[in-house]
Amino acid sequence: MKRTIDTIQVGDTATFQKTLTESDVYLFAGISGDQNPAHINQVEAEKGIFGGRIVHGMLTASLISTVLGMYLPGPGTIYLGQDLKFKKPVHFGDTIEAKVEVTERMAEKNRLILKTTCTNQNGEVVIEGQAIVMPPK
Amino acid sequence: MKRTIDTIQVGDTATFQKTLTESDVYLFAGISGDQNPAHINQVEAEKGIFGGRIVHGMLTASLISTVLGMYLPGPGTIYLGQDLKFKKPVHFGDTIEAKVEVTERMAEKNRLILKTTCTNQNGEVVIEGQAIVMPPK
Amino acid sequence: MKRTIDTIQVGDTATFQKTLTESDVYLFAGISGDQNPAHINQVEAEKGIFGGRIVHGMLTASLISTVLGMYLPGPGTIYLGQDLKFKKPVHFGDTIEAKVEVTERMAEKNRLILKTTCTNQNGEVVIEGQAIVMPPK
Amino acid sequence: MKRTIDTIQVGDTATFQKTLTESDVYLFAGISGDQNPAHINQVEAEKGIFGGRIVHGMLTASLISTVLGMYLPGPGTIYLGQDLKFKKPVHFGDTIEAKVEVTERMAEKNRLILKTTCTNQNGEVVIEGQAIVMPPK
Repeated sequence: MKRTIDTIQVGDTATFQKTLTESDVYLFAGISGDQNPAHINQVEAEKGIFGGRIVHGMLTASLISTVLGMYLPGPGTIYLGQDLKFKKPVHFGDTIEAKVEVTERMAEKNRLILKTTCTNQNGEVVIEGQAIVMPPK
Repeated sequence: MKRTIDTIQVGDTATFQKTLTESDVYLFAGISGDQNPAHINQVEAEKGIFGGRIVHGMLTASLISTVLGMYLPGPGTIYLGQDLKFKKPVHFGDTIEAKVEVTERMAEKNRLILKTTCTNQNGEVVIEGQAIVMPPK
Repeated sequence: MKRTIDTIQVGDTATFQKTLTESDVYLFAGISGDQNPAHINQVEAEKGIFGGRIVHGMLTASLISTVLGMYLPGPGTIYLGQDLKFKKPVHFGDTIEAKVEVTERMAEKNRLILKTTCTNQNGEVVIEGQAIVMPPK
Repeated sequence: MKRTIDTIQVGDTATFQKTLTESDVYLFAGISGDQNPAHINQVEAEKGIFGGRIVHGMLTASLISTVLGMYLPGPGTIYLGQDLKFKKPVHFGDTIEAKVEVTERMAEKNRLILKTTCTNQNGEVVIEGQAIVMPPK
């Protein structure tokens, strides 16, 4: 599945979708150590502005890494940087599509810049940003 | 433990440390879906430039979220953005310290900008970047 | 965050809260090996006196360890003993507060006795007991 | 497998053994929220008196719950209380045997008291204590 920079054009896209569940959030809280009540305390979270527990922003953002590392450019990619803007909360059970789109191709340096977007099942953008990667050689 | 912006000054810092293990990486691969061979295929990873399986960059970066959501500003924080530069690979068993330091304080908008750094047990910076958050009110 | 005995008084308290979920119970069943149908068999559990699957008592009790090891006395604490009385069942989705309160301080032996209580979202005590610990030096 | 009190005598015993691993400890840290550096930070733990990361005491103690809920008295048991004395640290990779032995039988109240002991692969007692349970009817 891996793609070298010769096979990649500006405008190429790839996606990955997942329904993010309570189980995902709880595991993520465990491995990251982020036991913020916004994610694991329903009583406190109901009092907050989101009305209940929400998914960690970095968990949703991780789906971007999945697209980059598995599909475009795919296995062998080296992740150099990622900018993230968290635009809306993700609730338990939301189905998120992470999409990457090549916006800049630097063949001599073997680098790509990609627009990275996470969208929920209602078409709302929940994360915006961009990635910079080295495709496999 | 939560801290409103009135109690926070430029220069304030907080940290969280964890030894990142194979178990963490495999769980993260499961919940993110990022089954890139760099993380879960020892045979392929040994052929690559890092000489073995490495930790997902977004997993290491998640420790930053832990510091923001649990310590500074702590519970009730809303995460608005994060920029990440992945500087060096993190190997299984590395002990990572995530550190945040307040660099800008916008009291009227209730926003903080923080320098975010992840460092390994040898003092090498593995991730650099900055976060923007809204502290709890 | 750690606190030596010099900084701790009788009457000091600390808490940790978490909504305990099916995901927590199933992971705990896996790592402990406690596959008692009361926890993982909805058909059998519905026939029992609690009307459904309940959280392992030792999982709820583990939140006490979290307060002791992370907040009071915090990192470096050595856990010497724990007495537990399981007073009421904890159902999936209950939000539990674990609270510790210092009831006895033995400075020369560097030991503390703490009253340990787990309470659900309705204010009902689900676990009572006491801990004995050595604070960090 | 379940046993009512009529079928149980003082002196009856049951055991469960498991090798407790880094993976178990990391999952337990996640679900309990107990991210004490003694368990998840190799660099800090090496400086402490145990020379490295150790297993959460409550995780080792959970093996007692396994014996009670699965073997003696087995499914349907209601756990009423547990006293624990943590005698020695448990290191990653230690193989622990949890053993319960009936020491008192109160047929009219349908209660049992059991001596509960956790021993490592070298025969050292790591946890001592006693449990009180209601066997299934």
